[in-house]
Amino acid sequence: MLVLVTYDVQTTTESGKKRLRRVAKKCEEYGIRVQNSVFECIVDSTQLRLLEIALEEIIDPATDSLRFYRLGNNHETKVKHLGAKPALKVDQPLIF
Amino acid sequence: MLVLVTYDVQTTTESGKKRLRRVAKKCEEYGIRVQNSVFECIVDSTQLRLLEIALEEIIDPATDSLRFYRLGNNHETKVKHLGAKPALKVDQPLIF
Repeated sequence: MLVLVTYDVQTTTESGKKRLRRVAKKCEEYGIRVQNSVFECIVDSTQLRLLEIALEEIIDPATDSLRFYRLGNNHETKVKHLGAKPALKVDQPLIF
Repeated sequence: MLVLVTYDVQTTTESGKKRLRRVAKKCEEYGIRVQNSVFECIVDSTQLRLLEIALEEIIDPATDSLRFYRLGNNHETKVKHLGAKPALKVDQPLIF
């Protein structure tokens, strides 16, 4: 299924900047970055749980926010992009 | 239906900062801000089309990115939040 992960990490401190980098790096293991703080991941429910656990361990729950949106398997028609940086399709091979 | 609007607006210029403010202000007419660049909107297809048109007129398509994710009507179980700033339910009255 397609899961959208969005996050706000407070980066006013050095530790915050480090958390932001770690969150992005962890998300990169599961999907592709479509905007600065938005990742699209094709995962099953086990992978999603692992991702949630990993991210929960990184963030500071007092200042940082994480949201997960499950868009299911038939997500082709549910996503619309306008403007710069059109996204790659995360569940299809890259063909150049 | 619940529609998630996410955006990246390049704010390296004054006009970019203005676009960012205008995008946020327009989204506020349709939903609630759950993260810095993420809005959850309860809209019908006509309202969604109006929002898309309005935002498309604000952004610079060369530098700014807009994404719309349609999560349908049964969205209660599709959204998970971790950490700070738990979201209000956008389609229910506020009770204090």
